[in-house]
Amino acid sequence: MRLSEGVEAGLHCATALAQLEADAVLPASALAGFHGVSPSYLLKHLKALTHAGILESVSGPSGGYRLARPAGRITLLDVVVAIEGVKPAFRCAEIRQRGPLKLPASTYLKPCAINAAMLKAERAWRAALAATSIADIVREFVVEGDPRATAAACAFLAANRRLQPGERKGRTGS
Amino acid sequence: MRLSEGVEAGLHCATALAQLEADAVLPASALAGFHGVSPSYLLKHLKALTHAGILESVSGPSGGYRLARPAGRITLLDVVVAIEGVKPAFRCAEIRQRGPLKLPASTYLKPCAINAAMLKAERAWRAALAATSIADIVREFVVEGDPRATAAACAFLAANRRLQPGERKGRTGS
Repeated sequence: MRLSEGVEAGLHCATALAQLEADAVLPASALAGFHGVSPSYLLKHLKALTHAGILESVSGPSGGYRLARPAGRITLLDVVVAIEGVKPAFRCAEIRQRGPLKLPASTYLKPCAINAAMLKAERAWRAALAATSIADIVREFVVEGDPRATAAACAFLAANRRLQPGERKGRTGS
Repeated sequence: MRLSEGVEAGLHCATALAQLEADAVLPASALAGFHGVSPSYLLKHLKALTHAGILESVSGPSGGYRLARPAGRITLLDVVVAIEGVKPAFRCAEIRQRGPLKLPASTYLKPCAINAAMLKAERAWRAALAATSIADIVREFVVEGDPRATAAACAFLAANRRLQPGERKGRTGS
């Protein structure tokens, strides 16, 4: 079982965008350069995040991406589901109903105990992902990260952001 | 993200074997027939479960598989790890260290906050899987399942088990 690499890219992009001012966007090319990934690879995931209402795309020569809502209201689960989809990792194929023992459909009205237990464990995973927001991650980066990394990230964002004068405020923060 | 279908097969096989008497084994062909899967497909997973010390293989004409320890001491996590391996679903590629911002290695001594949060969520999933044993699943099947399914399973096991006379007892149960 493996989460797609796009999850890591998506979480890092959301974390980077959470550090922009309210009136700024970052072009996809800068987000790709920032993380050392190819723009075409990243674009697929940025589109998925936009489709899920996590990012917002501003078009035009001074366009780019920004968070669609405050970072405190975007959880790790939101990003994981946007990239990976909503299907559970354990997908019951109902093998209890295969083979020579197959009984009438009315025998299998209750969910299989194995499926129920596996999905219960996944709910614990999802609950933990939902308990951490992108704002929490930014806070961790700032408080626990190396100051050199924080300074370099700030300088990169300042150099590559595109301001959208006269636009709404109060986008970042929790 | 998707768990391999082998996890479902492995969990069902362990659950079936937990219902055998202490001196009995079930051949791989019967386990495959019981679940309507191909024997060659299943054999790969039975070998993985045996390699992990969850199942025991008895060779010879009256050979087959049985649990290697009581069902109460085999958790869902044991089976998942035996089939899927121990690697986490989120595999940090350290993209924070890529790109033009790459700083000296000493900058990245602490784990990335994104990786830490993702692994914390996986620990919650694993803890939930570790909290349920194969004996718990058998109990659920018997208590909550349809009596017709329980009866059919018992009849199939009785018809296909191979007794190992004079062997140890007290294998099943929790």
